[in-house]
Amino acid sequence: MARWQGDARGRLAKAALAPYSERGFDNATVADIAQRAGLTERTFFRHYADKREVLFAGSHELEALMAGAVASAPASATPIDAATAGLNVAAELLQQRREFARQRQAIVALNPDLRERELIKLASLSNTLADTLRRRGVDEPAASRTSEMAIGVFKVAFERWIHDANERPFVELIRESLEQLPILAGTK
Amino acid sequence: MARWQGDARGRLAKAALAPYSERGFDNATVADIAQRAGLTERTFFRHYADKREVLFAGSHELEALMAGAVASAPASATPIDAATAGLNVAAELLQQRREFARQRQAIVALNPDLRERELIKLASLSNTLADTLRRRGVDEPAASRTSEMAIGVFKVAFERWIHDANERPFVELIRESLEQLPILAGTK
Repeated sequence: MARWQGDARGRLAKAALAPYSERGFDNATVADIAQRAGLTERTFFRHYADKREVLFAGSHELEALMAGAVASAPASATPIDAATAGLNVAAELLQQRREFARQRQAIVALNPDLRERELIKLASLSNTLADTLRRRGVDEPAASRTSEMAIGVFKVAFERWIHDANERPFVELIRESLEQLPILAGTK
Repeated sequence: MARWQGDARGRLAKAALAPYSERGFDNATVADIAQRAGLTERTFFRHYADKREVLFAGSHELEALMAGAVASAPASATPIDAATAGLNVAAELLQQRREFARQRQAIVALNPDLRERELIKLASLSNTLADTLRRRGVDEPAASRTSEMAIGVFKVAFERWIHDANERPFVELIRESLEQLPILAGTK
């Protein structure tokens, strides 16, 4: 969080949440956001193409971070262990921005266009994860199966983390979901 | 397939594939489609709101069919077994329309808007599946976890089915993925 104080990009992202929450995403203006950040509209457009990008710019960072962790997992790691390494670094990044993530999610949940964009980002995350597993030598369809499973774990753990009254750490919820997988996947 | 011959709705859906494939989804017109089906544009709009709906109208049927099978699985079925019953009826429906599904998928794959729509439909399928499991008494987060896992299986099996040179049945590919799940999910 600390490094966000200094840079205009981070300040704008944080400043956008209040107008999006208070006035709704569609009604909030770039002028509102810039004013709250103590910056100009021109500066806003130097960092973001539009209002929506403010909420999704972080997903590139998340995707790159996840792919990096999967790629650099030990060669001996199983596909699901390598994928888990990716989920964990993503979870740790979001954990550092918990309040931002929570407010952002409430905004996204209220707007169908933003929900669609979120689905697209998640599909992209899943594709990147499968690609990275393949580059580790995991064959198809195991790479796609593992990636779908891992992203499913991530989605459910994310929903729980965002709404958890006890504020349990995201990585803990991921671990819990992963432990349940073989049990839930086993047919009678 | 047989019952499609008689009804205008089915004839229009099948007739749409050629212009979408040949001219691209964006360039094809409702006039093209109606002409190929031997019907009027007016009839088209009595059945479909727009060009896109022709490709997605079947997803309601698929979702209802899947939910019905999950709901009516034996009370003793585990969550994944109940979900599998849903996947199987969906797979059987698509199997009967294999050529349509294959051509449709090639059209969807080429168009970003259609791909987005497909993601939304899949997310809706996952939500419906989780809802239906909860109505069977499956608690959270097990219902969401099982649903995400099942939809992941469905996605990967669908991709394989659509592109499989050996034309293996969809249900067989689903079974194969389900059998692999506990293995892939087990960490070392």
